[in-house]
Amino acid sequence: MQTISLFEPVLADLQKVEALLLEIVQVEQAPLAALLGHIVQNKGKRLRPAIVLLAAKFCRYPLDRLAPVAAAVELLHTASLVHDDVIDNAATRRGNPTLNALAGSRAPILIGDFIFAKSAQTAVMGHNLRVMDVFARTLMRICEGELHEVLSTRRWPQSTDEYHEKIACKTASLFSLSAECGAILSGANEDFIVALRDYGHNVGMAFQIVDDVLDLVGDEGQLGKPVGGDLRQGTITLPIIYHLDSAPADSMVRAIVAGDNHAEAEIQEAIRLIVQSPAIAMSYADARAFARAAKSALCILPDNQYRRALARLADYIVERIA
Amino acid sequence: MQTISLFEPVLADLQKVEALLLEIVQVEQAPLAALLGHIVQNKGKRLRPAIVLLAAKFCRYPLDRLAPVAAAVELLHTASLVHDDVIDNAATRRGNPTLNALAGSRAPILIGDFIFAKSAQTAVMGHNLRVMDVFARTLMRICEGELHEVLSTRRWPQSTDEYHEKIACKTASLFSLSAECGAILSGANEDFIVALRDYGHNVGMAFQIVDDVLDLVGDEGQLGKPVGGDLRQGTITLPIIYHLDSAPADSMVRAIVAGDNHAEAEIQEAIRLIVQSPAIAMSYADARAFARAAKSALCILPDNQYRRALARLADYIVERIA
Repeated sequence: MQTISLFEPVLADLQKVEALLLEIVQVEQAPLAALLGHIVQNKGKRLRPAIVLLAAKFCRYPLDRLAPVAAAVELLHTASLVHDDVIDNAATRRGNPTLNALAGSRAPILIGDFIFAKSAQTAVMGHNLRVMDVFARTLMRICEGELHEVLSTRRWPQSTDEYHEKIACKTASLFSLSAECGAILSGANEDFIVALRDYGHNVGMAFQIVDDVLDLVGDEGQLGKPVGGDLRQGTITLPIIYHLDSAPADSMVRAIVAGDNHAEAEIQEAIRLIVQSPAIAMSYADARAFARAAKSALCILPDNQYRRALARLADYIVERIA
Repeated sequence: MQTISLFEPVLADLQKVEALLLEIVQVEQAPLAALLGHIVQNKGKRLRPAIVLLAAKFCRYPLDRLAPVAAAVELLHTASLVHDDVIDNAATRRGNPTLNALAGSRAPILIGDFIFAKSAQTAVMGHNLRVMDVFARTLMRICEGELHEVLSTRRWPQSTDEYHEKIACKTASLFSLSAECGAILSGANEDFIVALRDYGHNVGMAFQIVDDVLDLVGDEGQLGKPVGGDLRQGTITLPIIYHLDSAPADSMVRAIVAGDNHAEAEIQEAIRLIVQSPAIAMSYADARAFARAAKSALCILPDNQYRRALARLADYIVERIA
């Protein structure tokens, strides 16, 4: 399934968001412009901007305010990825070199900050203080989630509850923001706003679980980064938790999670052990449950092509292979 | 001169801003709360919040909106310092260990981001989209200035114009924001807003020049950091430019600016050479010129205790010893 076909009902407007993003990175300072261009052209799936637009389709649809807010969501996501890559010292993202691989670690911290600021400036064009407040609170939650992840690296045991709390903050919060801000700008009533926020949260939870599964079972070429990254870094994701919960205390996976400097062959063996265990199926079952919850949240909305697109998006997020 | 006596006309309200800052860092997550507390208790002079309040004294004075915006300015400044310290790999700030000295470099990037978000969330309490826009644009300018500084490290020659452009972005922009946002929230007319923004810009320029001079001539105990930090890092400040402009090509200072790994005795000798040259007096003359420009900008405002406090602040910024 192509992401693009899912977004059909808002495709023309998504292209406006894309044009806005390209315009936003036209800054005067030459080295900054080059690095920003590198980031924006290193395109993601634009899931979050699409959710902003679709979520605004149940009431008024003020595109002049929605487009900048949709662009601002993507910029917030991008800024957060730039800092993640510095923190993780990652060399590639979506198959391309990361900023820190190109420019060292000093400039990317500032470029991430610059993009956060651009995101805020662009969000202001939504002319809505509640939207600004949701943006600020969401960035706080993302940071709390990321910090929780950094501080719990290589720590075992960790519960699935702790994992859920972490991904709710670091990932689902931005999906939740996307749906909520679309709804707010559309002038929807509080019931619709809450339903769409709830949809966003659940889609985001499913998204991160599948991301964490794909980190183990995915195709390196399609993911654009090496398989097993979480395992190497000691980031304890849901499939790793499910595997370790039933693995013996002397398991290879436990040793790799606990410490650095394992041979590549050992890491590959650990990946194989997890992939062949029930951990993957259990994780997918959880992701599907979140996707179902996302679709249930939509039930109070009118049944139209936009609601159906959001429902299909929840399914796509579980079925995707990269 | 005590900073506090300068702030006399708004002292009670500054204490409200301080209480708000303490309240803001009460977050649930324990490690985050401890690190945030460390930062907020590591107090600066609160120059920027004082300027917000004083700049609002020429029209209405809506303290319930001014106090959060004043706190937000200090948080923006703090977030920026946290990232600076990671970028510079600094061990101490204001005589205390930096966050990265306490917590490594990974968490402080996220804590800086969290404080940027807290700043935005607090600024939203000013209920003014123009203020939000000024905040976002200012953060962009700060990042551009810092990035310019990082990318021009150890590069010679550099002009005084380039130096002015850098410090206008990285430092003066936040002083300018402070005065401008105070004026906006007070409901002042555009002439007053422009005059106060101009005041803030010029005070900020003087502030950074004096900071750069104190980095060479200051007292380590009073500064709370080692003398000659800019020289060691290859950051080419105004006194260094003035010195190098007239120094011979084989000067010790030029060698130290150009490359790493000099012996401490050589660095001390380079500091002595600059301090004994006319570079310090020339830099102070520039700082005084900016302070005069700041005071001139105030001339269209009514001559009252608040205008006099702002004028004295411009002088204090040049005369301070730390």
